Amino acid sequence: MTEPGTSGTAPSPKDVALIVGGGPGISSSCARLFARTGMLVAVAARNPDKPVLENLEKLHDVRRYKCDASEPASVELLFESVRRDLGAPTLVVHNIDGRVPGIFGKSIQAAEADMAFDTLRNAAFSAFLVGRQAARLMLENPPNANGAKGTIIFTNASAALKGFPLSGAFAMACHAKSGLAQSMARELMPQGIHVANVPIDAAIGWTQEDGTRAHRRAGTTVDDNMADPDHIAETYLQLHRQHRSTWAFEVVLRPWVEKW
Amino acid sequence: MTEPGTSGTAPSPKDVALIVGGGPGISSSCARLFARTGMLVAVAARNPDKPVLENLEKLHDVRRYKCDASEPASVELLFESVRRDLGAPTLVVHNIDGRVPGIFGKSIQAAEADMAFDTLRNAAFSAFLVGRQAARLMLENPPNANGAKGTIIFTNASAALKGFPLSGAFAMACHAKSGLAQSMARELMPQGIHVANVPIDAAIGWTQEDGTRAHRRAGTTVDDNMADPDHIAETYLQLHRQHRSTWAFEVVLRPWVEKW
Amino acid sequence: MTEPGTSGTAPSPKDVALIVGGGPGISSSCARLFARTGMLVAVAARNPDKPVLENLEKLHDVRRYKCDASEPASVELLFESVRRDLGAPTLVVHNIDGRVPGIFGKSIQAAEADMAFDTLRNAAFSAFLVGRQAARLMLENPPNANGAKGTIIFTNASAALKGFPLSGAFAMACHAKSGLAQSMARELMPQGIHVANVPIDAAIGWTQEDGTRAHRRAGTTVDDNMADPDHIAETYLQLHRQHRSTWAFEVVLRPWVEKW
Amino acid sequence: MTEPGTSGTAPSPKDVALIVGGGPGISSSCARLFARTGMLVAVAARNPDKPVLENLEKLHDVRRYKCDASEPASVELLFESVRRDLGAPTLVVHNIDGRVPGIFGKSIQAAEADMAFDTLRNAAFSAFLVGRQAARLMLENPPNANGAKGTIIFTNASAALKGFPLSGAFAMACHAKSGLAQSMARELMPQGIHVANVPIDAAIGWTQEDGTRAHRRAGTTVDDNMADPDHIAETYLQLHRQHRSTWAFEVVLRPWVEKW
Repeated sequence: MTEPGTSGTAPSPKDVALIVGGGPGISSSCARLFARTGMLVAVAARNPDKPVLENLEKLHDVRRYKCDASEPASVELLFESVRRDLGAPTLVVHNIDGRVPGIFGKSIQAAEADMAFDTLRNAAFSAFLVGRQAARLMLENPPNANGAKGTIIFTNASAALKGFPLSGAFAMACHAKSGLAQSMARELMPQGIHVANVPIDAAIGWTQEDGTRAHRRAGTTVDDNMADPDHIAETYLQLHRQHRSTWAFEVVLRPWVEKW
Repeated sequence: MTEPGTSGTAPSPKDVALIVGGGPGISSSCARLFARTGMLVAVAARNPDKPVLENLEKLHDVRRYKCDASEPASVELLFESVRRDLGAPTLVVHNIDGRVPGIFGKSIQAAEADMAFDTLRNAAFSAFLVGRQAARLMLENPPNANGAKGTIIFTNASAALKGFPLSGAFAMACHAKSGLAQSMARELMPQGIHVANVPIDAAIGWTQEDGTRAHRRAGTTVDDNMADPDHIAETYLQLHRQHRSTWAFEVVLRPWVEKW
Repeated sequence: MTEPGTSGTAPSPKDVALIVGGGPGISSSCARLFARTGMLVAVAARNPDKPVLENLEKLHDVRRYKCDASEPASVELLFESVRRDLGAPTLVVHNIDGRVPGIFGKSIQAAEADMAFDTLRNAAFSAFLVGRQAARLMLENPPNANGAKGTIIFTNASAALKGFPLSGAFAMACHAKSGLAQSMARELMPQGIHVANVPIDAAIGWTQEDGTRAHRRAGTTVDDNMADPDHIAETYLQLHRQHRSTWAFEVVLRPWVEKW
Repeated sequence: MTEPGTSGTAPSPKDVALIVGGGPGISSSCARLFARTGMLVAVAARNPDKPVLENLEKLHDVRRYKCDASEPASVELLFESVRRDLGAPTLVVHNIDGRVPGIFGKSIQAAEADMAFDTLRNAAFSAFLVGRQAARLMLENPPNANGAKGTIIFTNASAALKGFPLSGAFAMACHAKSGLAQSMARELMPQGIHVANVPIDAAIGWTQEDGTRAHRRAGTTVDDNMADPDHIAETYLQLHRQHRSTWAFEVVLRPWVEKW
């Protein structure tokens, strides 16, 4: 990033964003927006060779990394690689909800133990590993103009706000992420790291095959009744840019017509 | 606002902001920021002739109005005047906390009935009157580019989140505002009006006599340990600009070192 | 209560219950249950001559008092009279929800200012006055076997938990009561007074003209889908009897089939 | 329990209580109280041969079972054994907080991955397994006089209410239990099973070596500043006995002097 041998002026510190979890929704919207504002951007996924991530690289210069976020060693390696390639992250987004197929609509008596265990592991334990590694690195960062050494954002879901019936395992995992985020916020904010929990209380839109974006639930007539991930990404950017004199910990985003 | 006789192109609709409650903190910061972004700005106060408000007029072209926000007729007249002078409001901030002297640190058995009554009236009843009138006018507005007919923001306090000891009357009033805001959000959001409740969980800084701003509590050594109203105003502006596919209802702002 | 001139043995202290707000639901159930356990029971109402209260006196020896609980002097007089007649209260129930006709289902723009004001006054301000007076007297009580000088219970409603649309004024009042209760709990519990907030998240059953009790909503087929006030009263008694090593502050009661 | 060949009158159904997690605090208090009221009582623990559990058997006829509550097969076997020996449980208490040594006071960057994983597994995943198996059996129970097929109680901790610093892993696990309990309550209550979450917001007293009980924190002078497990057990019994027209889902218990 800096030319060796150039003048002694320190380069202005550059934001390095790491998005853990990669798909066509929030992760892609964040990657595009962060890149557009001049950040160096990394995306990590179990399978970083998905076309949607390849496109991010081609079009927005986003770096792709392979990572199983529920494996301690894999998470440590990821952060090491990003630091080596781009610099120490100043903005980390944990964007894994960890749901496994069949987790919704299944009665508690029919719910499989493996499904519950894997969801806890994929969503909550990975949040712990990613949040922990982000804290380790960020505590070494110098504070930026807003007084922050970094920002850690956990994407969360309605089930973090309310345990819905027929989805006990998902309620466990989402509540666990909230508890972790709260604890980390109380611990790290006074050390200069902004921690935020962002439950999206809605279905989330996505980019369709033809490149257009879908934000209306099938079968409905109301417009914008799904959350637009491009707008979610804007909120993440605003959170990252908040001055430490006025940090928000939790922001729940929901479409105008959502019942709550 | 529009030149008579110019071409038939409709003028792009202009934001009209009305801030109810006027002092050197959040109200002034909002007025300055909103004016800077090109909004037409009105500020209402029991006494609109305070120097701090006169300065807003002189330096930022902010219009001043006299209003007792706990009087139904006074509130209706205020909105009528603003509509006539500037246009129908698209952004209304209720920024009155209504505390009366002595409300903190007084035991429940020593608390005066008048103090409790006046606080309820000043803070909560005025929020009802202002919110109601804002809704009446905004429902007639056309939706803007974000799908919104308007934004109503209630400034709130820590006591909305937690009833602290030795301040029961203030806890009542702040909780009442939260309840009102929630009810209005559930009712008005699906009609295109964004309603937000913003508890500031901290002491708030202010502009000092010499024009500099204070954001450190007396006797402390940590910097930025009071909420900077300029940054609070930024959050208000961001809320106003959110797309209706992803509205936040409640945002709690607190300084990095605040205990919670 | 004590015979003048009898032996020097101190009478065992007797529980004195004061129920403010009087109707055929929770108040009557509390009065009957408390009387049955041997407490001296007083009920206060704007109109203490309702047949349902006269019956409480006839059948359960409950004392009736006239009181406008939103008037400071009236509340002070009430407590003075009860102390004189029965002894200082050890259990006070504020059972006024203060709703005025038409408060539900009315849009915010159509809601009358008087309706909002009266509801705040009837429900929240009266809770302040009753809670304050209860605290004043109870702080003088000796602790009982459970370490308590007294118990103050606020009956509350669903609107304390969630601000529902089309009822902003009621949401204000119920939230205000919660805020007051919280503040009083944090202040008074360490002084030996148990304060509790009990939102009933349901429609409440009542005694019908023929003496039978109704606990099923009209038009439904599910049994027990309204809260039975006799069972609510049991919870109040249990709260009163809790040892101070394990006090509950808030208990939400709802029927098994209630959606929440 | 019933004599074969005796008269045709159906025996009144007997309560069978199963307490999962066994120590000298809440589990022992519950076992003693439940036995005293005539229930058949079972206690399950990883090591059922602890002296404190042997004493429960000797003095209170409590049946002991070996179970690793984080193992699906072990939990299923436990319930099968209890059903065979005592009958299908009507009251199940999950009383495992799952904390591992060193979980408190450790910074997020120093927290071990294994510690976090094991705590999630011990506390939250075991709650899922126990709750699921309880639901499976209870749904087959006939409703009792209160309309209930059974009661499932999750003991929880302060960390379920608030994520404290320096204990992120414990906050995760406790929040996860709350989320599960909420989901199960919304799902099972309309089917006649009472689900409750009981965060104890305090240190909990225990029985000391000499048989006396400790309820004061070391070094303090205030009495009753720890929660007395005998009183916690009373609340559990009251929850179990609530009529389904007025079920409480969450009850937070804290000593009178606790800060919150």
